Amino acid sequence: MTTDTQWCRDLPVVVTGGVGFIGSNLALRLEAMGARVTVIDRLLTQYGANRYNLANPLNPDQGARRIELIEADIGDAEKIEQAVAGAGMIFNIAGQTSHMDSMQKPLEDMALNQIANIKFLDLVRAVNPGVRLVFSSTRQFYGPPRYLPVDEAHPIFPPDINGVHKYAAESYHMLYSRVYGMKISALRLTNVYGPRMRIKDAKQTFLGIWVRHAIQDTEFEVWGGDQRRDFSYVDDLVDALLATATADAAIGNVYNVGGFPSVTLLELAELLVKVGGSGRFLLKAFPEERKKIDIGDYYCDDSAFRAATGWEPRIDLAEGLARSIAYYRANGAHYL
Amino acid sequence: MTTDTQWCRDLPVVVTGGVGFIGSNLALRLEAMGARVTVIDRLLTQYGANRYNLANPLNPDQGARRIELIEADIGDAEKIEQAVAGAGMIFNIAGQTSHMDSMQKPLEDMALNQIANIKFLDLVRAVNPGVRLVFSSTRQFYGPPRYLPVDEAHPIFPPDINGVHKYAAESYHMLYSRVYGMKISALRLTNVYGPRMRIKDAKQTFLGIWVRHAIQDTEFEVWGGDQRRDFSYVDDLVDALLATATADAAIGNVYNVGGFPSVTLLELAELLVKVGGSGRFLLKAFPEERKKIDIGDYYCDDSAFRAATGWEPRIDLAEGLARSIAYYRANGAHYL
Repeated sequence: MTTDTQWCRDLPVVVTGGVGFIGSNLALRLEAMGARVTVIDRLLTQYGANRYNLANPLNPDQGARRIELIEADIGDAEKIEQAVAGAGMIFNIAGQTSHMDSMQKPLEDMALNQIANIKFLDLVRAVNPGVRLVFSSTRQFYGPPRYLPVDEAHPIFPPDINGVHKYAAESYHMLYSRVYGMKISALRLTNVYGPRMRIKDAKQTFLGIWVRHAIQDTEFEVWGGDQRRDFSYVDDLVDALLATATADAAIGNVYNVGGFPSVTLLELAELLVKVGGSGRFLLKAFPEERKKIDIGDYYCDDSAFRAATGWEPRIDLAEGLARSIAYYRANGAHYL
Repeated sequence: MTTDTQWCRDLPVVVTGGVGFIGSNLALRLEAMGARVTVIDRLLTQYGANRYNLANPLNPDQGARRIELIEADIGDAEKIEQAVAGAGMIFNIAGQTSHMDSMQKPLEDMALNQIANIKFLDLVRAVNPGVRLVFSSTRQFYGPPRYLPVDEAHPIFPPDINGVHKYAAESYHMLYSRVYGMKISALRLTNVYGPRMRIKDAKQTFLGIWVRHAIQDTEFEVWGGDQRRDFSYVDDLVDALLATATADAAIGNVYNVGGFPSVTLLELAELLVKVGGSGRFLLKAFPEERKKIDIGDYYCDDSAFRAATGWEPRIDLAEGLARSIAYYRANGAHYL
């Protein structure tokens, strides 16, 4: 993994979904590294878009801000064509992640997670076919793991509508890379957490709610508790995205990205309360109506990704939770 | 496999895509078995809909026709709700199969093969959630086989846009079966051929074109020639669809359906010319621009399906080709 940041100085970089959780962390990092960042975002607040995410540059001494915002759907060619055409690198992070919403409104989920992506790819292919593009995909469509850890050859078995559409979107990306020679990679993310995640509800990650209760010193619910999961701290994930974009070996490939060894949800809850010094939790049986789309234990094998890019996670769970709590203690009002 | 046909006497059965190749063969069989058949079809002639497909009942002595046609998209709830609500069995066969068209017009392929299906499923779920439903899926999204024969656990790797959308449509069906308890099965079809297939062009199957040249005593092209493929004669496939619909063990499952042992395309071409006593072929190198979305050898392991239903193919390739040629010699004018 390159630690040299000169490669992106003054590089025009497009980040879709850049007002959301992961996108904003990436956009701020790129800005701090000297890139000229254009964020494309529909500003759907219910799915994590929050203008405050971009309010505090990582390097306040740097002077003039270099993040431009285009408020548009990534499928709206007219509004975004110029930015896409001029980009030296593209991170396609936009998407909605609520599993329950996708079951209730399949067509809306399709519009956001699938149709927008094929339109976006067609635009990139038309105006900037040689650009390096990294797509943020998800481990979600593996479904209930048939073996652990889950590697990239694991069968695809979408447990909900969101998984169907995310897999279709990833398939488009890989297909365009293979058939049209576009320089595309995809990362299948697991539970990403950290500053700028949505903490108002569980539409983005259950951990958001937990952190909210920790900082408010109130009670949250742990369902089941024995499910094992792996977590990526968002700064590590940003490292992973940047490592992918700069690794030629990653072109045309899909990789799992995880982090430190998995923990049970009960261990996670205990650690959160301990690290934060506040909050408490109630251990409950897993609700019957959610069982149907739950996936049980999940943790990934990301050795292929580490081998291809040299990436390694740096922020362990205790440190990541501490940083998250510190962020929301200071900025929580903007996320409630 | 049940050979008793009494189970469907007077049963209201819906066949989507019933004016097309497979759907019409199924609708005619059901009619001959005494079912009250309603066909839902958009009548898209470029994808195989041909009113002549339903012109000749299998049993002309039977008296009044029992096939009703609703000209509608399967996503058009208003037009089809009554038929769907009253159905005792549903075969969801509608779809377009052109790989090249899907690459050129991804959104049109999505509308036909994916959006229509989620709308259809939502309607079935709303008005007839307990109905037995069989979906015709495809082996196409396995992509280039990683091992042979291909079983149902083979990785999914859509080689073109059509494959992405067909897999999404199959996933919807399996998801609705699992999450909502609907009685759905899916069959992943391989190369199906026989009377009523499209022979005007290769949008449905390359074998259609070959048969056209055989009956016209003209020259067709064989690309490559050494690719192995398996074939299902359409009457056998209709048997398979009926066997699925009457096997409780098949509910919630996806199965490959093949036929007799695979042959190379060269062997197939030779057999066709020999059986038909006409036509000739030119063996050519595989065109470069098609290689990118071609899948190479393919033949399936359908032992799970045979075990679950007792189904076996009955019409071997020589007999199936002979029957196909006889059909088009008698009826070819309606297909050119």
